[in-house]
Amino acid sequence: MYKITFQLGEGEIVEAYAAEDENLLQIAQKSNVAIDAPCSGNGSCGKCKVRLVSGELDTKQTRHLSDEEYAEGWRLSCCSKPLGDVTVEVPDIASAYKSRMKIEDLSSEGEISIFDRAKENVLAAGYTFENSMALLDITMDVPTLDDTMPDNERLEWAIAELTGVKNVWMTYSVLHKLAKVLRMEDFHVKAVVQKTAKKIFVYDIMPASEDVVIGGLAIDIGTTTVSMVLVNMLTAEILGKASSGNGQIRYGADVINRIIESLKPGGSKKLQDAVIKETINPLISEMCRKLKFRKDRIYRMAIASNTTMNHLLVGVDADSIRMEPYIPTFFKTNSLFANDIGIDSNRDAHIIIAPNIGSYVGGDITAGTFSSMIWNRPEMSLFIDLGTNGELVLGNSDFLISCACSAGPAFEGGDISCGMRATDGAIQACTIDPETMDPHLDIIGEAGQKPIGICGSGIIDTISELFTCGIINAKGKFVREGRRVRHDKYGMGSYVIAFEEDAGGTKDVEITEVDIDNFIRAKGAIFSAIRTMLKYLDFTVDMIDDVYVAGGIGSGINMRNAVNIGMFPDIPQEKFHYIGNSSLTGAYMMLLSSKAEKKTYEVARNMTYLELSTVNSYMDEFVACCFLPHTDAELFPSVKMKV
Amino acid sequence: MYKITFQLGEGEIVEAYAAEDENLLQIAQKSNVAIDAPCSGNGSCGKCKVRLVSGELDTKQTRHLSDEEYAEGWRLSCCSKPLGDVTVEVPDIASAYKSRMKIEDLSSEGEISIFDRAKENVLAAGYTFENSMALLDITMDVPTLDDTMPDNERLEWAIAELTGVKNVWMTYSVLHKLAKVLRMEDFHVKAVVQKTAKKIFVYDIMPASEDVVIGGLAIDIGTTTVSMVLVNMLTAEILGKASSGNGQIRYGADVINRIIESLKPGGSKKLQDAVIKETINPLISEMCRKLKFRKDRIYRMAIASNTTMNHLLVGVDADSIRMEPYIPTFFKTNSLFANDIGIDSNRDAHIIIAPNIGSYVGGDITAGTFSSMIWNRPEMSLFIDLGTNGELVLGNSDFLISCACSAGPAFEGGDISCGMRATDGAIQACTIDPETMDPHLDIIGEAGQKPIGICGSGIIDTISELFTCGIINAKGKFVREGRRVRHDKYGMGSYVIAFEEDAGGTKDVEITEVDIDNFIRAKGAIFSAIRTMLKYLDFTVDMIDDVYVAGGIGSGINMRNAVNIGMFPDIPQEKFHYIGNSSLTGAYMMLLSSKAEKKTYEVARNMTYLELSTVNSYMDEFVACCFLPHTDAELFPSVKMKV
Repeated sequence: MYKITFQLGEGEIVEAYAAEDENLLQIAQKSNVAIDAPCSGNGSCGKCKVRLVSGELDTKQTRHLSDEEYAEGWRLSCCSKPLGDVTVEVPDIASAYKSRMKIEDLSSEGEISIFDRAKENVLAAGYTFENSMALLDITMDVPTLDDTMPDNERLEWAIAELTGVKNVWMTYSVLHKLAKVLRMEDFHVKAVVQKTAKKIFVYDIMPASEDVVIGGLAIDIGTTTVSMVLVNMLTAEILGKASSGNGQIRYGADVINRIIESLKPGGSKKLQDAVIKETINPLISEMCRKLKFRKDRIYRMAIASNTTMNHLLVGVDADSIRMEPYIPTFFKTNSLFANDIGIDSNRDAHIIIAPNIGSYVGGDITAGTFSSMIWNRPEMSLFIDLGTNGELVLGNSDFLISCACSAGPAFEGGDISCGMRATDGAIQACTIDPETMDPHLDIIGEAGQKPIGICGSGIIDTISELFTCGIINAKGKFVREGRRVRHDKYGMGSYVIAFEEDAGGTKDVEITEVDIDNFIRAKGAIFSAIRTMLKYLDFTVDMIDDVYVAGGIGSGINMRNAVNIGMFPDIPQEKFHYIGNSSLTGAYMMLLSSKAEKKTYEVARNMTYLELSTVNSYMDEFVACCFLPHTDAELFPSVKMKV
Repeated sequence: MYKITFQLGEGEIVEAYAAEDENLLQIAQKSNVAIDAPCSGNGSCGKCKVRLVSGELDTKQTRHLSDEEYAEGWRLSCCSKPLGDVTVEVPDIASAYKSRMKIEDLSSEGEISIFDRAKENVLAAGYTFENSMALLDITMDVPTLDDTMPDNERLEWAIAELTGVKNVWMTYSVLHKLAKVLRMEDFHVKAVVQKTAKKIFVYDIMPASEDVVIGGLAIDIGTTTVSMVLVNMLTAEILGKASSGNGQIRYGADVINRIIESLKPGGSKKLQDAVIKETINPLISEMCRKLKFRKDRIYRMAIASNTTMNHLLVGVDADSIRMEPYIPTFFKTNSLFANDIGIDSNRDAHIIIAPNIGSYVGGDITAGTFSSMIWNRPEMSLFIDLGTNGELVLGNSDFLISCACSAGPAFEGGDISCGMRATDGAIQACTIDPETMDPHLDIIGEAGQKPIGICGSGIIDTISELFTCGIINAKGKFVREGRRVRHDKYGMGSYVIAFEEDAGGTKDVEITEVDIDNFIRAKGAIFSAIRTMLKYLDFTVDMIDDVYVAGGIGSGINMRNAVNIGMFPDIPQEKFHYIGNSSLTGAYMMLLSSKAEKKTYEVARNMTYLELSTVNSYMDEFVACCFLPHTDAELFPSVKMKV
């Protein structure tokens, strides 16, 4: 057995031993060394680079490694097997995560956020932001030798008298500190309770003079990104917002790879730890630290996520999601409390999960659908969530039909050589001069930020511009020559968006024919799903009154360009609306409005699911969609006119 | 600072540093070295002996150390302060505990136990042994592509259909293993549930072919001793019985000392650990191991204990029990689950606590009162629980009145120089030849067991015999001379029950005037409480139809002798009944019979409490009782005749 030494950041060392035939990524994973591996180690993503310090590897240079990188010792860990004792340097994924972590204090912000808009919509629909949480101010008689009722009954009686609800139940935590807290200010206390018609559930008590905000947490767990908002449960005010990459990413970029990983011994716990201990808890800690908010004052949570994500979160078997007949453990559950799965908040905080409707349409979509309000209008609307999976919901106040397609990670920058998430340094918009072929870029970050890579909305723009400028053809192949157009030794074309000297990284930012091809398949999956769904209902595109686009693709998405490349149907621009992270706004509304929560369950219950793989024409549609904009140009009259 | 080295059993060493003026017992306690110290370190019990190996101590020889012991290096740790670095040998309390631990497998025993008798009584009173636990056998449809209901809803529906109760709730543990268990035997499972009229609470599921016994645990937590029985919740069968000393004993013999100890920093946790981690959990483990019973199949518990014991168990502040106006945190609570306080069983096992009625009459008495059935008869009965505290309940089916007196540990062998609990080697009965003054002894243990010490019932016999033989007078002073009667240099008399050569230990087993005095005060506390209570009600002794004696004093208690020494009222022998550990049998019945549980709450609610310290005549009564049998000999006509 060979000894493998992983050099992590800040002088940290992990030593491990290689079993026969194991590659470096596998050795790292079993030793809890974090290496980014969105493709789960099949050599396709090129993200799992490590630098060889000493020793010998059975490895080869792939297209993901430049000659310079190879010379410097960089290797793909999934493609490298030790041939002896080996020392490698591992780029610090944790600090990469941390730098990706964004905490925003929104408590004093004036700007209208997506939450404000979502809230306005919900209020306009007659929904109130009332929930079952309440803060009671309770004054009890101080006990005497003639009034010897024990502390817990004294509190229960006082609460019953105050609220008119006789059935009062307190948690062990409350019982545990009761005697002390009651006596701090002479039996004058505040109590954090959940109040329903028949029962009061006492979560916490504190001396009456204490300032108390009842915290709630809405969390969107995306396959790629986790976002959350901390709210004041009584005022619906957003106190802070936080997001970071999903720590599970190193076990695979998509849900199937993660399920497979979770089936290995200890895998379920590993995946659960990656999202809770490595992602959610650090976000909560960091956000609460910045906001000076006590974590144990978070008493309720709403979580929206796809079916696999919520099963891995809860730590339950996800295998049956993937295997026929695709039966999840739960669509919704009432059994979950923070302490059960170790979320860092009040231990008794109840966790509500936005309802799944099947293995491939999860709570992120039902929460998003609620948030889009398409269920509340007679007009026909299409809701599109562009995530690692693409999900679509079509309908109105009379019916809702949903389907899911596997778009892959391209919308969030995955599977694209210079792809990245929509954070600082990402090209989020691009126009190209038809004459000079020089681009004009819009880069996320402060003024002067140089481009590092390209995010989803930037890719849409770039491909659309390359196509409308005649630089690439309908198949995505380069057909014009120029300073920025290059061909490698295999003849594969690429377009340099930013030369190394203008870029923020160490190499050119470019888009290749392989990238374009990957992206065309992603957009093809979306458009063919739309087509199949419309056909199934015997509908035409002009029957769509509104399109709500959600997801992490970025608010900069140019709908015109998305139509140009044949991703969205060719209908007037004003019908498109970008609504951002609707999964998170949906969770926010479920958390704060009991009526919204109830309605979301109802929306989920009434939503029909169309399994695309059972529709014969879907594959034909998909193949036909893998062109710019489509093999049937008549479907895109406005694009046809332009090109 | 001096370094103190504690040598424990089996080569284990604990090193600690002494703060100024700390004695060895204090140093040991803060270092988690277990030393038996029933008197909490005030020098009165003589149990905290350690042997000096090296170093120098500021110490002195007390009456608890013989010259030989002192010469061998034995010192009382509570009376010894280090004068430099010191090494001492500590007798192994843990193994002493373990040897005291008794596990009995009663599953195949034919003999009528106190449980059988208690059960008969309860059944005769029209109470059934039905409780809310049930084992369901559930067959579900196997899911298909056309029947894609998620696992949890499938189970919930099947249970609702089977039971007719729609509101079904499952624990996180069930949700966690649901997918796997359902698929083991094609959706045919067993479920352990709690069933009430409106709700089914699912604790556990397993494949249908598995043999399942729903376990329940009844626990009596005495100040001195902890006892438990493991039962089959569905058949009421007792599977096993276990008991040992209460690990809290080293923090004080009585509740007041333990409360004081619990108020020190970390004290509450320390006391909780002592009873749960060091006492209850080892008993459960050992019993379950012997019975081959899975600990996670214990789904429900009933615990009977005095108010201080249950507060220390739950880890809540016990200070207000001790301080005017004496308000406990709870009389009863519904908030407690095994996982909250770390009892080693199914994590979701609900713990019911026999209700307290005040700071000094706890669940042990209400459970015991239920078990005695005195609440179910028109005849007037007196229930006496002889523990570290003595508690009395007088009444019938119309009323119940209770009081508590501090009898001290004498009934369980404490505060008596050769006293011990009623285990192997204890003299449990004694007669003395009036002529030769030689005793005839009954010793607990196998044939040939030599006497080591004397337990409560043995002390009653010995004092009664010494008195009726005219060896001691009414004040407990020796008035006859003989081979077995000795006087020390201070003139204190003693009677040798067994000379060293006949004893199982290394010294004479004797009873001294100090012991007799201690015991007279203990019995005086009981009888004066009886007198005060009767007076308060304007009753006379002949109105008492039956006396039920409970507690750890031992089934060998001779009621005639207890009357002789003036401990119990002078009424006919046939009116006395020893009912053993009624606290445990009461917990057993609360656990198994929902009706009994409800009735116990009702009994507790209707019980009046008489605070003896508020009755002016109590102290006078007590002083008058500190004679053999009493200053007023007319109260004991049968004894007067005899002496």
